Amino acid sequence: MTKPALLLARPAWERLLDGALDERFELVRLWQDPDALLAERGDAIVAALTTRLDAALLDRLPNLRLVATPGTGYENIDVAAARARGITVANAGDAHSTEVADHAVALTLAAVHRLPELQAWMRAGHWTAESAVERRRGMSAQRFGIVGLGNIGAAVAERLAPFGGAIAWWSRRDKPAPWPRKESLLALAAWSTVLVVATRGDAAGLIDADTIAAVGPEGLLVNVSRGTVIDEDALIDALRSGRLGRAALDVFAEEPTPPERWRDVPNVLLTPHVAGTSYEAAARLREAAVQNLTSVLDGGPVVNELTA
Amino acid sequence: MTKPALLLARPAWERLLDGALDERFELVRLWQDPDALLAERGDAIVAALTTRLDAALLDRLPNLRLVATPGTGYENIDVAAARARGITVANAGDAHSTEVADHAVALTLAAVHRLPELQAWMRAGHWTAESAVERRRGMSAQRFGIVGLGNIGAAVAERLAPFGGAIAWWSRRDKPAPWPRKESLLALAAWSTVLVVATRGDAAGLIDADTIAAVGPEGLLVNVSRGTVIDEDALIDALRSGRLGRAALDVFAEEPTPPERWRDVPNVLLTPHVAGTSYEAAARLREAAVQNLTSVLDGGPVVNELTA
Repeated sequence: MTKPALLLARPAWERLLDGALDERFELVRLWQDPDALLAERGDAIVAALTTRLDAALLDRLPNLRLVATPGTGYENIDVAAARARGITVANAGDAHSTEVADHAVALTLAAVHRLPELQAWMRAGHWTAESAVERRRGMSAQRFGIVGLGNIGAAVAERLAPFGGAIAWWSRRDKPAPWPRKESLLALAAWSTVLVVATRGDAAGLIDADTIAAVGPEGLLVNVSRGTVIDEDALIDALRSGRLGRAALDVFAEEPTPPERWRDVPNVLLTPHVAGTSYEAAARLREAAVQNLTSVLDGGPVVNELTA
Repeated sequence: MTKPALLLARPAWERLLDGALDERFELVRLWQDPDALLAERGDAIVAALTTRLDAALLDRLPNLRLVATPGTGYENIDVAAARARGITVANAGDAHSTEVADHAVALTLAAVHRLPELQAWMRAGHWTAESAVERRRGMSAQRFGIVGLGNIGAAVAERLAPFGGAIAWWSRRDKPAPWPRKESLLALAAWSTVLVVATRGDAAGLIDADTIAAVGPEGLLVNVSRGTVIDEDALIDALRSGRLGRAALDVFAEEPTPPERWRDVPNVLLTPHVAGTSYEAAARLREAAVQNLTSVLDGGPVVNELTA
């Protein structure tokens, strides 16, 4: 007797499950010759753990009943196409919002306090007295602009509040919040000394060349949303020409981002899309994925179902 | 007619004043042949801006009436010897406590989120998927122990609070506080995953080998107090042997710290005693120094007088 099959899109998702579903499902590891696997096992697959799903893949999974995406963003899941076929789609809800917010604040503080430059400066045998290291504008004198005031954006604001700077935000839709909303993204960018991008991942190109220029030569742009939300070519141009002061990025237009793309770009702090990856967040992601994936077998409730 | 003379101990303090007292005082720049300067101008000096003052220097300044130290710590000022001669001593009070607290939190977040390693990892052309970069224990799962709950320590706790971890503290003297006090430094170190040293600078050797070992192989030690508060040789041994997980340091036993001392030490994040140096803090330090130094001439009130 065959077990029902679970499609795993990447080795990372097998590591995330950590054996939790090995007894219940046959695992179909899609990274090992996808075409042959789909031809052979496509009919057996009833559930999928993936961040990418389009109509072409759906066509090859006639018995798919549930898609679980192990994160908050789901811009590469065609939710409408899946739902049209009666397939349930669920994300990880709020499982790692606080970690992502922590990372945004870590990047902000490291850039404002110039930790990478100072460490490199000391490693090269220098000290402050002879220093070419500029004095910083302190956290209390910054104006923090937050793009997108969802769970992540609001958590960023809460973490920045005790540092004493000003906080404002912008999002397409207004809503009640303890911080003032600016009338437009461009107005927020022009006002901000630090612009933190924490918006939904489907806002491709939202942060364009004009917005980047508005943050300005003394400004800092932080991105923990999706790389595609920023016009990355314009960002790199602005950093090279000094029209933007600095950038701290966890996400990139293409991932992995080609290292040569950043080699000569000044004033950047880069991390490889790890904002949400703590042990604790992984445990919450695993719990949500296991509950949703086993619901296909046991008929339990689905958490964080996506409806659009 | 000669102007009264102001002793400046370091070029940094002339830069701090930024010309504000040039009209009122003759400036005696002690870094340019101190012996000759003291022999020639010692009698004319009525005020001093310095972080170091001992009885030997006092002997050469018979008309000194006021010493202003441009910072919070004053462990290298012999306050008792000065007061015994009728000389007023003042520090900068709370002028840069919040900046120092900001820096402690910047170091903490950068170390917990492994920003230096991640940036180096990406610069070397790697990405997460193939990653040897360990998952982190998130901020919400940390236990933050604060040594010294003065203005700086309390500001560190307030800034860490929204991240959701546990917070405790220890100081020789108990006092009312929103966070629990541990019964001893060693108990605090053993409990903590992150030990932030924000105590007074005169507690030489307080953080000894046993305290460092108690922070442990998974632990982080952050120091924004004074380098001498930690047994730095023991700290380096513990980092090399893995008995301490990591350290983030703005202050050192000797400053400038010799770069070769840190060259092969793993898991350290170093900044060159810049915690308090924002533009805003510099403006507050200048204002306090100018007020106190001109009080010698005009008889105005002295702010932040030290009495012990």
